[in-house]
Amino acid sequence: MTTTERYERGWEKLRQIDGEAGPNVVESLKDIAPDLGKYVVEFAFGDVYSREGLDLRQRELVSISTLVTQGGCEPQLQVHIHAGLNVGLSPQEIVEAITHCLPYVGFPRVLNAMFTAKQVFQERKVTV
Amino acid sequence: MTTTERYERGWEKLRQIDGEAGPNVVESLKDIAPDLGKYVVEFAFGDVYSREGLDLRQRELVSISTLVTQGGCEPQLQVHIHAGLNVGLSPQEIVEAITHCLPYVGFPRVLNAMFTAKQVFQERKVTV
Amino acid sequence: MTTTERYERGWEKLRQIDGEAGPNVVESLKDIAPDLGKYVVEFAFGDVYSREGLDLRQRELVSISTLVTQGGCEPQLQVHIHAGLNVGLSPQEIVEAITHCLPYVGFPRVLNAMFTAKQVFQERKVTV
Amino acid sequence: MTTTERYERGWEKLRQIDGEAGPNVVESLKDIAPDLGKYVVEFAFGDVYSREGLDLRQRELVSISTLVTQGGCEPQLQVHIHAGLNVGLSPQEIVEAITHCLPYVGFPRVLNAMFTAKQVFQERKVTV
Amino acid sequence: MTTTERYERGWEKLRQIDGEAGPNVVESLKDIAPDLGKYVVEFAFGDVYSREGLDLRQRELVSISTLVTQGGCEPQLQVHIHAGLNVGLSPQEIVEAITHCLPYVGFPRVLNAMFTAKQVFQERKVTV
Amino acid sequence: MTTTERYERGWEKLRQIDGEAGPNVVESLKDIAPDLGKYVVEFAFGDVYSREGLDLRQRELVSISTLVTQGGCEPQLQVHIHAGLNVGLSPQEIVEAITHCLPYVGFPRVLNAMFTAKQVFQERKVTV
Repeated sequence: MTTTERYERGWEKLRQIDGEAGPNVVESLKDIAPDLGKYVVEFAFGDVYSREGLDLRQRELVSISTLVTQGGCEPQLQVHIHAGLNVGLSPQEIVEAITHCLPYVGFPRVLNAMFTAKQVFQERKVTV
Repeated sequence: MTTTERYERGWEKLRQIDGEAGPNVVESLKDIAPDLGKYVVEFAFGDVYSREGLDLRQRELVSISTLVTQGGCEPQLQVHIHAGLNVGLSPQEIVEAITHCLPYVGFPRVLNAMFTAKQVFQERKVTV
Repeated sequence: MTTTERYERGWEKLRQIDGEAGPNVVESLKDIAPDLGKYVVEFAFGDVYSREGLDLRQRELVSISTLVTQGGCEPQLQVHIHAGLNVGLSPQEIVEAITHCLPYVGFPRVLNAMFTAKQVFQERKVTV
Repeated sequence: MTTTERYERGWEKLRQIDGEAGPNVVESLKDIAPDLGKYVVEFAFGDVYSREGLDLRQRELVSISTLVTQGGCEPQLQVHIHAGLNVGLSPQEIVEAITHCLPYVGFPRVLNAMFTAKQVFQERKVTV
Repeated sequence: MTTTERYERGWEKLRQIDGEAGPNVVESLKDIAPDLGKYVVEFAFGDVYSREGLDLRQRELVSISTLVTQGGCEPQLQVHIHAGLNVGLSPQEIVEAITHCLPYVGFPRVLNAMFTAKQVFQERKVTV
Repeated sequence: MTTTERYERGWEKLRQIDGEAGPNVVESLKDIAPDLGKYVVEFAFGDVYSREGLDLRQRELVSISTLVTQGGCEPQLQVHIHAGLNVGLSPQEIVEAITHCLPYVGFPRVLNAMFTAKQVFQERKVTV
């Protein structure tokens, strides 16, 4: 597979999952680190998100869980709560995934994530 | 619901998911911090794992992802890779979930987790 | 003990320690994840903060130290610096606890925490 | 104050708190990074642990809490559980401090820390 | 060496590296934790940054990398991207250092850091 | 560029930097997650380590610093201390880089890293 094919596959996947948010991140990197945007497309989406073995709803469960756990990644968590809804997770499933992290990471990270979810749900006018 | 009912519900759930590993952790806490074992049963399993909204396969995807991300939790990751298999995740799905964390947490944590999965799979004589 | 009793014990403890901030968090979760608010009350305050063996001043020293260390938990740190003052820690003891984390977590997390303390002290018009 | 005075003050404090474990760490750094050992003595113990405003029992509560939270610091946690006992914390207070971290950091880090405490208590033949 | 000499050496180093940002941090700690400011000067700059064995450009590569990795330290990262430019790292070298962290820490922390660098570069009107 | 070219460029870079350790990691992933080994080669080494703008000595300073900071990545840190020596960093420069992390991450992570360096230096019979 050529680099161009990976990029195109990644770009299509990125649009499918992240909507406008994905291309916006890539665009905002253009003048400082265009290759970082290229890696988002080629590696994160062209390679990893394009893999078989888990469907996109499962993949977004994993993405949300890892972002809840890391902390300090609210912008990315916001993108992936949108992404979860885009690929068919229900608001309730997202709330449950965040809640399920509680015994593993404790209340502070889970509360921060839940308030991020609350903002996204309000923006999209969806309810749990 | 009384505390006893939460404990019993949690204990049953713990046995269903973790097999012998769960009760062993609770037992090993008896002489130093029995209440911590009680909270594992009542809160983690009686409250959180007993919730609706995600099935156990989805819950173990979340548990594995958060443990991959935290790092330094190899004993718990081992328990939950076993647990994932116990509740019906395939070895391949577990490998995919760990791999999917790669763009979020980088290679070191993902490699550590994959080698933990490799040990569990060898112990259970399952293959990807 | 019934769930109701745990909730009531936790609620009373939450009010005693966090003042208005505790109920506000619970309230803000009502429309998205009411059970998360319930767990704050029942588990964090009804179970853990209600334990014997450490007094509330010691418990808030622990809470503040763990929040300084995690990083990215400024909202919760703010609540628990207020809580520390509420249960009788002096501003100086709080400053010392944050400073004592320095050899363990380094300057960045300690500086972030100290500026959070500064805001709380200004808000409450207390001085070190 | 001269560097020598800071070193001597720190060395005395280190011996008082850590017993033999402190000098052993300093000794083991001699052939690779002697200045790192010097900073342990001068800065961590000569400056920070020698401060007023918290007594040594409070300081070890903070040290233990930050080490529980960081994860992956079992050798240092072991030293400071010994240190906590050396300066007068009871085994029960140490168990309580670790347990109190639960709502903040979740079960995995707390379980790892509790099993470290169990080892130290067994080694010193103390019981909770 | 006396404490005064460490302070003076540290202050000079701090000014050389951080420009006005360093003294501003020290100043902002005056009314809450003046000793923390003193430790920034004496220990971080008087001891560590004054060491031989790495030049200041190498030291700022290390500082930037550790701050990218920790996450949640955007204010300190901002100071040290300025510092990197102050001691002679090119904007491109800073972008490369942040990009090089990608396989180790993943996209979220690297993206947060890159957008911090973008702000600093815009403020200083430098381009990659 | 085709995938094959990225792989070959990455493989050559991996051999140059990591010696036998790199191929061993890739080999050990063969039966569980061969694509993860492929990504190590293609992405980490074929894309990132093959970039211009920093030389390999600078890149290993960054790699070591991020691994010191993350904690719990001792196997990877060991590989990259070897790698640092392979690409021309002196033992003293590696010790300095680890020491320089001290004001940013505190003593526990730095001590763990320094003892890892000590092991590598002993294995290679090099001295500081």
